[in-house]
Amino acid sequence: MSNTRIERDSMGELHVPADALYGAQTQRAVNNFPISHQPMPAQFIRALILAKAAAAKVNVELKQISEGQGKAIVDAAQGLLEGDYMRHFPVDIFQTGSGTSSNMNANEVIATLASRLLGEAVNPNDHVNCGQSSNDIIPTTIHVSAALVLHEQTLPALLHLVQVIEHKAEEVHPFIKTGRTHLMDAMPVRMSQVLNGWAQQLKANIGHLQDLLPSLQALAQGGTAVGTGINAHPQFAARFSQQLSSLTGVKFTPGKDLFALIGSQDTAVAVSGQLKATAVSLMKIANDLRWMNSGPLAGLGEIELEGLQPGSSIMPGKVNPVIPEATAMVAAQVIGNDTVITVAGQSGNFELNVMLPVIAQNLLNSLQLLANSSRLLADKAIASFKVNEAKLNEALSRNPILVTALNPIIGYQKAAEIAKKAYQQGRPVLDVALEHTDLPRSQLETLLDPEKLTAGGV
Amino acid sequence: MSNTRIERDSMGELHVPADALYGAQTQRAVNNFPISHQPMPAQFIRALILAKAAAAKVNVELKQISEGQGKAIVDAAQGLLEGDYMRHFPVDIFQTGSGTSSNMNANEVIATLASRLLGEAVNPNDHVNCGQSSNDIIPTTIHVSAALVLHEQTLPALLHLVQVIEHKAEEVHPFIKTGRTHLMDAMPVRMSQVLNGWAQQLKANIGHLQDLLPSLQALAQGGTAVGTGINAHPQFAARFSQQLSSLTGVKFTPGKDLFALIGSQDTAVAVSGQLKATAVSLMKIANDLRWMNSGPLAGLGEIELEGLQPGSSIMPGKVNPVIPEATAMVAAQVIGNDTVITVAGQSGNFELNVMLPVIAQNLLNSLQLLANSSRLLADKAIASFKVNEAKLNEALSRNPILVTALNPIIGYQKAAEIAKKAYQQGRPVLDVALEHTDLPRSQLETLLDPEKLTAGGV
Amino acid sequence: MSNTRIERDSMGELHVPADALYGAQTQRAVNNFPISHQPMPAQFIRALILAKAAAAKVNVELKQISEGQGKAIVDAAQGLLEGDYMRHFPVDIFQTGSGTSSNMNANEVIATLASRLLGEAVNPNDHVNCGQSSNDIIPTTIHVSAALVLHEQTLPALLHLVQVIEHKAEEVHPFIKTGRTHLMDAMPVRMSQVLNGWAQQLKANIGHLQDLLPSLQALAQGGTAVGTGINAHPQFAARFSQQLSSLTGVKFTPGKDLFALIGSQDTAVAVSGQLKATAVSLMKIANDLRWMNSGPLAGLGEIELEGLQPGSSIMPGKVNPVIPEATAMVAAQVIGNDTVITVAGQSGNFELNVMLPVIAQNLLNSLQLLANSSRLLADKAIASFKVNEAKLNEALSRNPILVTALNPIIGYQKAAEIAKKAYQQGRPVLDVALEHTDLPRSQLETLLDPEKLTAGGV
Amino acid sequence: MSNTRIERDSMGELHVPADALYGAQTQRAVNNFPISHQPMPAQFIRALILAKAAAAKVNVELKQISEGQGKAIVDAAQGLLEGDYMRHFPVDIFQTGSGTSSNMNANEVIATLASRLLGEAVNPNDHVNCGQSSNDIIPTTIHVSAALVLHEQTLPALLHLVQVIEHKAEEVHPFIKTGRTHLMDAMPVRMSQVLNGWAQQLKANIGHLQDLLPSLQALAQGGTAVGTGINAHPQFAARFSQQLSSLTGVKFTPGKDLFALIGSQDTAVAVSGQLKATAVSLMKIANDLRWMNSGPLAGLGEIELEGLQPGSSIMPGKVNPVIPEATAMVAAQVIGNDTVITVAGQSGNFELNVMLPVIAQNLLNSLQLLANSSRLLADKAIASFKVNEAKLNEALSRNPILVTALNPIIGYQKAAEIAKKAYQQGRPVLDVALEHTDLPRSQLETLLDPEKLTAGGV
Repeated sequence: MSNTRIERDSMGELHVPADALYGAQTQRAVNNFPISHQPMPAQFIRALILAKAAAAKVNVELKQISEGQGKAIVDAAQGLLEGDYMRHFPVDIFQTGSGTSSNMNANEVIATLASRLLGEAVNPNDHVNCGQSSNDIIPTTIHVSAALVLHEQTLPALLHLVQVIEHKAEEVHPFIKTGRTHLMDAMPVRMSQVLNGWAQQLKANIGHLQDLLPSLQALAQGGTAVGTGINAHPQFAARFSQQLSSLTGVKFTPGKDLFALIGSQDTAVAVSGQLKATAVSLMKIANDLRWMNSGPLAGLGEIELEGLQPGSSIMPGKVNPVIPEATAMVAAQVIGNDTVITVAGQSGNFELNVMLPVIAQNLLNSLQLLANSSRLLADKAIASFKVNEAKLNEALSRNPILVTALNPIIGYQKAAEIAKKAYQQGRPVLDVALEHTDLPRSQLETLLDPEKLTAGGV
Repeated sequence: MSNTRIERDSMGELHVPADALYGAQTQRAVNNFPISHQPMPAQFIRALILAKAAAAKVNVELKQISEGQGKAIVDAAQGLLEGDYMRHFPVDIFQTGSGTSSNMNANEVIATLASRLLGEAVNPNDHVNCGQSSNDIIPTTIHVSAALVLHEQTLPALLHLVQVIEHKAEEVHPFIKTGRTHLMDAMPVRMSQVLNGWAQQLKANIGHLQDLLPSLQALAQGGTAVGTGINAHPQFAARFSQQLSSLTGVKFTPGKDLFALIGSQDTAVAVSGQLKATAVSLMKIANDLRWMNSGPLAGLGEIELEGLQPGSSIMPGKVNPVIPEATAMVAAQVIGNDTVITVAGQSGNFELNVMLPVIAQNLLNSLQLLANSSRLLADKAIASFKVNEAKLNEALSRNPILVTALNPIIGYQKAAEIAKKAYQQGRPVLDVALEHTDLPRSQLETLLDPEKLTAGGV
Repeated sequence: MSNTRIERDSMGELHVPADALYGAQTQRAVNNFPISHQPMPAQFIRALILAKAAAAKVNVELKQISEGQGKAIVDAAQGLLEGDYMRHFPVDIFQTGSGTSSNMNANEVIATLASRLLGEAVNPNDHVNCGQSSNDIIPTTIHVSAALVLHEQTLPALLHLVQVIEHKAEEVHPFIKTGRTHLMDAMPVRMSQVLNGWAQQLKANIGHLQDLLPSLQALAQGGTAVGTGINAHPQFAARFSQQLSSLTGVKFTPGKDLFALIGSQDTAVAVSGQLKATAVSLMKIANDLRWMNSGPLAGLGEIELEGLQPGSSIMPGKVNPVIPEATAMVAAQVIGNDTVITVAGQSGNFELNVMLPVIAQNLLNSLQLLANSSRLLADKAIASFKVNEAKLNEALSRNPILVTALNPIIGYQKAAEIAKKAYQQGRPVLDVALEHTDLPRSQLETLLDPEKLTAGGV
Repeated sequence: MSNTRIERDSMGELHVPADALYGAQTQRAVNNFPISHQPMPAQFIRALILAKAAAAKVNVELKQISEGQGKAIVDAAQGLLEGDYMRHFPVDIFQTGSGTSSNMNANEVIATLASRLLGEAVNPNDHVNCGQSSNDIIPTTIHVSAALVLHEQTLPALLHLVQVIEHKAEEVHPFIKTGRTHLMDAMPVRMSQVLNGWAQQLKANIGHLQDLLPSLQALAQGGTAVGTGINAHPQFAARFSQQLSSLTGVKFTPGKDLFALIGSQDTAVAVSGQLKATAVSLMKIANDLRWMNSGPLAGLGEIELEGLQPGSSIMPGKVNPVIPEATAMVAAQVIGNDTVITVAGQSGNFELNVMLPVIAQNLLNSLQLLANSSRLLADKAIASFKVNEAKLNEALSRNPILVTALNPIIGYQKAAEIAKKAYQQGRPVLDVALEHTDLPRSQLETLLDPEKLTAGGV
């Protein structure tokens, strides 16, 4: 026990590692919650520290703390962020449902550093936490950290993926393949149509995420305990959002109703729901890629993804679509994270949701997994795949379903008879149509030309 | 077999009930899918029939079918909707993943009725389905039916709930209660603050749902098979949206990328995700109501919900919060429906999602359950509950947590000591504070006045 | 109002349809819950009526009601079950969380019928509900109805599916196909190995479901209100299980701890979890079938599923794998139903879970959907598909991955070089191996024979 | 680049950290998957290393590798496990869906160490991976790691929780409280009945988990690629299970059908489903504790949980039920992890499930979170709470619902009238019953004695 010091809080004394910046309350939480042995996400702690800096600036403005205290807190916060701050934040994700332990962890660490800078005691509760409560700062930190990751990582990565897909769509525009509905041969499509469809799926998701930004950037700060704003200056909320906006470059605003923002985690639920929707889109795209790449001999073999690593410990020469697989696993994880947040979102009774830390963890995890896997999918799968044109053409012109193009002229019923015969006899549909209609070969060739068929129209 | 007639399609002959308006393909589906014994939702069939009418109008305009055919189809559709149309739509929800059986069911029923009206054969595929494919009309019908229920039922019901809550908030504004965080006594709140928080939760959800309307009102129509628009006139998509808008009063538009709208069900996934978020909010509100109403003796007993029915088959005199319970069960169902749609949304390979019917069923179910339960919650629970003021006041002034208000003056540490002593001795916090601080009673009375405390501020 | 009569209960009077067998409490519930407009599942009501008959028999034995009352109740219950009983059970699924309204519906309907049979008043609460509370009879009914559907429908259907798969496995044993891992060509497998793998998946699920039967067949009955058994004869629980076992042919037992069985719905959660696992297996099997059937030209084309209906309203001649698709949609629904039950299972505070009706609905829905779709999958997809041997053989012998068999002789590294070259040059792996090893052609032919390779071994 | 060395595999050369024990394939994976920056779970890697040791022993027995090679591999594995092995396993969770990169990571690290021990080259593929494929060793490792954590941590922790609850039940047996159904006052229960109900919930879950052990302890090993067992000695599977059983003390067996065990992850889905069910039970128990502890003034206040840390950064003196909250968050996470596994379990096409790493991660996470939180819940919440008897008694005898006990004598209807009056007049039910029945006070006192009422019976 020689490497510990004694600290005390309102509950009494306890041992803290001698060199720890944190104090009694952090240590209690470390002792109380040996559950996952995982700390809160770094992005969450970063946002919490930024919020502490913003609060200190406001508290100076509003004369709640001295200029010296304020400057020391801001400098301490800044200093922390420039180093390996996570080693000072050991509290487990599975802790008090309010995240109070993480809030006090930040208060204590910053108070210690600020006291050193200032040369006099800066109090964790009275100064660093001034005008705040875990009830508002933790919901605020969830919004801020999610907004920062969304702006800095997730949205740019998704946009990058869109651009890479659209660029690739131009490259593969010349290629036409057999479309598939129900996995069965259907009318032909251009490879570019397929890719542009993916891009549009992602653009719609991006748009829906952007629609949620105003909600995400609206903060609970100022509500303090229970939402009434007790002990917070009436101007605290508005000034805090301004300060934080200027610290981060993202526009934050005071929430319309702080009771709603503290008692519920509806915005996290909504954002996570939309991340889940994005994951569903990525799952579709990843699976399309995997299937187009399947084979090479006994699969569809339409494309060849870049080979990144030997695929098997036993089957030599095997190369697998590992990036789409990793993307699909990310999608599965994001879908499960959304379940956590959905269950946790229901856990708000009265004035406080008490599953805040697990919401923070899962929301940030989803945001970062989507960001990182979207970039990989763009750069290591979509940008570099090659099209196997010979394989595409194999089935294209023999496909009896092309007879669809004759419907407007000969009617569905007759077209069905031609298709049936072409299947049974394994003959090109054009030949069968020539026998069973009055249409001349040249007209049939025009009508059944796959390239024309991808342009739609009657 | 005397009550059947023989019908035939491209696969051959089969028996159909003699008086059925539908034909061979519907009958095949009836025979093939004895799974849930539940038909597609009435709102889905209604939207499908409306879409058929709109398509017929466009096909006349574009000269794809004759005016007589068009008028007969429109009249047949209109006639259907005026009667008990669901008896003509027996196809199971669990059918072909494209919903083709339901599309052909509509084509056949309308063709039969239109033929009778016109006095000559109107063909299900060539005339009623002209310019359409199940690939576009079924995704279109999902969007249209969901948009109609959202506009006609769900959004109005949620708005009604907001209004009732806000009106009730005014009524209960005078009442102050002990706030609770972590279920533990916290600083006081006004009853109106609680209710306005709920209202804001719902308003945020409504806003997020409205943000999704442009996506929901964008239609796959015009893509026909696989999205290329084969066999559809280039103007079909735009004119169809116009006609449908004028038939329904809701503004529909052609989708930006029809491949995305046919290959995925991303919009349904997004809308369902937001309905799930709304359900999470309703779960919170329903649970708050249930707990506030709990007791009357051994519970919180803050309010008394209107008694609607005897609560127990064995315990006489028992009355239970049945409307919040039903609401909470609706929330659970909507959350589960969202899981179905999330799983189904992943089931789009290449050019078509093939879980369309189960998506339609679950999406419409969520929309209607939320609509109906929101109205009930408003009218049979929130509008009519009474506040038990005596019970609220019991705990209010004795709550040691009120000491929080002294933090800015005496500091957190000293305040904690006062609170601790008040708890241990079961004494009013004011008395203990009087002993342990220099503050005069009058100032303490002002500082610790629950009413003032609900107004926040330092 | 001439078609109504006046009824009264402890809350006062209300109008009931003149010819309704039910009384005031049912009518209150009908008025209170216009939410889904769907009644409780027929299987639930059937089990509830059976439970009422069993209880009446026990109450006569234990002299709680007269023999005449008991006989009248049993006869009334039996009579109900022989007719269209569902028209007397109009209460919505979304009702009081305890299902008291459905219990009282049964009590009232049976009391009315029993009174008519006996010629004197049989009371819903005092006689039909004697020794019971909604708190025990509704959880009991969930267990009983689920057990009956499991025994009568779900397990037999799953076993039928296993048998059909195993029978088909014998039929397709001669066929060898290219195995696929990561969707990429891998070592060959026998078609029978694939099918037997599916059968084993299902057998494992069946085994896990059977392991849960003792829990499912353990009943809450006897706990009455809150679980203490107040107002129930000490022998009621044991005798009830005996009577119900003899009425149904399924062995029911009194639960070990009635508080657990009333306060939670853990058994429903566990059973639903295993139904979800079964759904996941069916999804895998359905997707394997869909992909094996894909094409016929631009897909894998390994098998041809029986054609059941025209597949497209626009593409003539198209036939789709509709039964596997319906199965996959069932799987999605069952997975979502499990989410509902998971959320609902958490909704037990203290002595009663209050989401019983929605649990009943979703559990029974899952059981019946799995039963019906498993039979269809067996009889309309697996029993009848044809193997496309030519397609299987196309890729089989040319697959460079076969070089795996040479690993033990030449090592992974050298084998990888041979595979790589075979891919690059598009040559049979045997030819390349001949060049790059000392192995004679005859040995290579033996080593690389696909048929031998499916038998494993070094 | 001076701190790297050049390695090569079948795809070419690349840089590896100079001191890394792993080789080219691990490095490729590190380069390919910068997604979550989290390695596979330590318990997974431990089981993989144990499996490698067991395989080496078998390979010596079956003369597939030399005794020297075998001994070196076993010693290397053992040495690894004695140190900080995780620093040699940097591959991300989100990698190739087969986990091949982790398998090769183990093969490479062990080969390096074994080569050093042996003084000659031990090959990762030909020697360490001998008789194995990622296709079988990774599913095997999922089963083995989950079984080990279940046996070593989760089941003992759950049993410990049961014991602590049952012990506490004895302690609190004297206390009687108002039961609650629908959160409303119901008939009284003993505190011990409540706790024994919880214990039974957990015992049922433990039983269901134990029922799944035979499936979990059945291994895919021996199937090698695709399940046929190509390149594995026919006795490999049986001997491997024996060796691994003797290394771990847990009885493993060869799976009945290796195709099912490689192509699906059904066992993981089933086990996770049951862990989810356990989480639902824990959520119920945690919530009951939270509510019983609520207050102290404005809540139920029935018990007082041990105070573990200051509860608020702003509200002095506040103490919150942090352990039940952490437990509830664990429950939410386990429920979400199950969603991941459910989605991933569907991702098996043909011969291999390709979401193995994400399944491993989520399954092991659930197992460990449940283990750690169950112990905390037992030791820091249930073992130490105190009962507030005065609060329990406040409501007990005045509760009008006690009139239920008179039903058998006076009938439900009359009892309802008495209860109603007692509520309206706020009088003890005994007094009202005295007025409205002929029953003498002494009999009423006996009938309405809460203690007797908890013993049930007529």
